[in-house]
This record gives sequence, C-alpha cells and structure tokens, in this order.
Amino acid sequence: MAEKEKLTIVVFSGELDRALAAFMLATTGASMGMDVQMFFTFWGLNIIKKNEGSIKSKGIIRKMLNFMNRGGSKRLKLSKFHMLGLGTWMMKGLMKDINMPSIDEFITMAHEMGVKLIACTTSCGVMGLPEDAFRSEVDSLVGAAYFLGEARESKVSLFI
Amino acid sequence: MAEKEKLTIVVFSGELDRALAAFMLATTGASMGMDVQMFFTFWGLNIIKKNEGSIKSKGIIRKMLNFMNRGGSKRLKLSKFHMLGLGTWMMKGLMKDINMPSIDEFITMAHEMGVKLIACTTSCGVMGLPEDAFRSEVDSLVGAAYFLGEARESKVSLFI
Amino acid sequence: MAEKEKLTIVVFSGELDRALAAFMLATTGASMGMDVQMFFTFWGLNIIKKNEGSIKSKGIIRKMLNFMNRGGSKRLKLSKFHMLGLGTWMMKGLMKDINMPSIDEFITMAHEMGVKLIACTTSCGVMGLPEDAFRSEVDSLVGAAYFLGEARESKVSLFI
Repeated sequence: MAEKEKLTIVVFSGELDRALAAFMLATTGASMGMDVQMFFTFWGLNIIKKNEGSIKSKGIIRKMLNFMNRGGSKRLKLSKFHMLGLGTWMMKGLMKDINMPSIDEFITMAHEMGVKLIACTTSCGVMGLPEDAFRSEVDSLVGAAYFLGEARESKVSLFI
Repeated sequence: MAEKEKLTIVVFSGELDRALAAFMLATTGASMGMDVQMFFTFWGLNIIKKNEGSIKSKGIIRKMLNFMNRGGSKRLKLSKFHMLGLGTWMMKGLMKDINMPSIDEFITMAHEMGVKLIACTTSCGVMGLPEDAFRSEVDSLVGAAYFLGEARESKVSLFI
Repeated sequence: MAEKEKLTIVVFSGELDRALAAFMLATTGASMGMDVQMFFTFWGLNIIKKNEGSIKSKGIIRKMLNFMNRGGSKRLKLSKFHMLGLGTWMMKGLMKDINMPSIDEFITMAHEMGVKLIACTTSCGVMGLPEDAFRSEVDSLVGAAYFLGEARESKVSLFI
C-alpha cells in the first residue's frame, strides 16, 4: 500500500479565526485521506488547553501569565472586531447558523478522524504548562526537531 | 511540454502589508513561469471585494458584519502604525514613490499575468457574501478540498 | 555527496514571539543538517536592524517611519500582552529562565550554524533602508524572485 500523503500545520496563533482556518484545513485533509498533524505552539497552545480547571505552574510570573492567558477552546477571541466580546459572539452565531462546528467540536472531530494534535515542548517550558493542562485529545508533546522531520516528508506544510 | 511548477498562496489576512507581500510573491511567481493560485479566505476576502456598491447579505448580523468589515482593495489598513489612517496613507505614498503598484493595480496585473484569484466558499457562507460581492478578476469560489488538492501538487504553498 | 535538504522561511512579522518561532525552527533545521535560509521582509526587517545608531534614509516620510519603527533585536515586542512593556519583559525573563537564547543571541547562533540571513530588497526600498542599517550577520539583500527560486527547491517553506 502506498504511504499516505502528509499535511503538517504549525498552529502558532490562538485566535478563533485562525484556529478555525487550521481545523478546516486539517479535517478536510483527513477526509481526503491525508495523514494530518497539527503542531500547536506559543499562543496556539491556548486552543488545546482544558476549558475547566486552573493550571498549576511554578513561579509567580508563570502563574500570572497563565492567569491572563487562560485559554481553552471556548475562550478564543477573533483577531479583529472582538469588540469586548460582541464580535466574537456574533461570529460564533454565524458559524452555528451554517452548521459549522465550534472549535470545541472541531477538536473532537479532528481527533476522531485521526488528525494528530501535538503540543510543542519548548513553548510549554517557557509558559510553564504541565502535560495535564491539555485536553485528552492531545496525542503528545514534542520538540521542533520532530516537527521539521515530519514537515520535510510532507506534501504541504503551513504556518498559521 | 513539462508541466508548470505550482505556487499556491492562502491569503487569510486582510491587511495592506500582508496583501502586498502576497501579490509581490504571486506576480513574481507568474513572471518566473509558475502556475500561481491565490486562495482568499476570511479577512483576505476583503481584498477582492468590490470597492463600490454595498453587499446584500441576509440576516441582521451578516448585514452588520459586512457594514463594519466593508473591504475593497482601497480600504485595506496596515497591521501596524495605521494611526487613524495617517500611517496607511504614508505607506501608500512610499509605495508610489518607488513605483510599486497599489493593491488595486496588483489585482488587475496578477489577473492579466494568469494568476488565479479564488474565493473560499465556506468563508463566504459564514460572512454571507454573495458571488457578486467580488471583483470581476475573481475566477471562482471553491472549498478547502480544492485548495488542498492544488497545494499538494505545488512546489511552494504559503499561508499569509 | 547528496545535496542538503532546504528549509526556507519568510520572516514577515517583527514581533518577539514570531521571531522566536522563526529562529527556533531555523536553528533546529540547521542542527539537523538542513540548508536554512531566512528571508526577512517588511516588519521582519526590524529583527535584523542594528541595535545601535540611527538609520539615514531620504525624505521626511521615510525618516519618520524609521524613527517610529526603529527596530533592532532588543526592541521587539510581544504580539499579545505587551502591556506597555511589562508582558514583553516578563516573557524575556521566562525565556532566560529555561536558558533559551535571546533574539540577539539567536541571530549570532543562527549565523554561526550557517543559516543564511537575507533581507528583501523591495521592502528595503519602500522603507528607505540602506544596506548599512543591518547587522553584520546579514548575508545579502535579494528580491522575491530569489526567494521563490530557493523555495521551490525546498522541502519546507514557511511564511511567519
């Protein structure tokens, strides 16, 4: 059997709109039979943080950062027109109106379709995020070398 | 005859500076004999909206969104230093000073060089954009599967 | 001997967090034996400007732009949570805490590992940046055609 073609996406941004683009591409790729990996780094880690509970990180500065930058798929904002929540709330309504999944649903769907959700260890280190800060759908924590190794075997690599 | 090498660009952002980078790469690629496709999605759709006329979309929220997010190549702003229009106006002056085309001119030029300008149907659905919201240079409306199909045959794929 | 696999990165953004991602990938690629090129354009040029001295550009508007947009690796800000400098200062502390190099150190390190640092001539033209505005680690000034020529021979090309 021929090997599957690979699609590798770095998800650097933590905004609702960019997360949406990333999951649209990832699930479309999976439905086309591609082997898809999403590599979450920096603000992108917010997308795959648990929605409930608080993160226990060490040191006052990391505690502050994780308080401000709480994350979780339900807390993502639009990169434009957030307008104290009004714009983001409107966008979620528009998505529902055309039966588009929420980011929360997209994560579960992507996972069930075999998309690998991967967190960047280095970013976790900077931000003081322990492994249990992430949802159960997250497959593993790996470094940049793993990503590049996969990317160079991929037909398509994108940085979002 | 050998097939042309493909360059595929997702234009997600709707800012003047990123639009400029996308069109610089697209027209350069075309001038090097590459087969270039630009896939406009989300805020990127603003770039290829008509400058004149208003968009008739259904539902009060989509009407509001299209009023706030009016778009058109002449309304794009810088991502930094917009400064209530002053920075953007200055940047346009600097571009003209070195004889760089405006985005408006870049769209026509790209189209004439054979660059395919494509709008993402899903984003059009979310935002309630009908096909006639776009300029005549836009070739078609397609989905993410079309983009990925092209991207995996491309030498270079970029997400801007 | 087999040719080295190429990694080509367009660095469009001038923020601390995106610069960090770019240098992490570039130095990791180099350590894996890849032939890495970083192509700095638009706001990304700020990263490789000299930290000292002022830039002599022609015309009042370019002088103003280079005053506002001073750049240099030590002046980069976070794209989120800059908070008048507090967030950026905190992030630099967290990076130091896990022994991550600063951007300044990353530039020197990348250069010593053989990563090519390249500035985009067109952006330099728009912004009125003379060649001596850049650090000594910068290898050359080239146009978009050079970048695309390299990108289409690359295993991985990213736009950051």
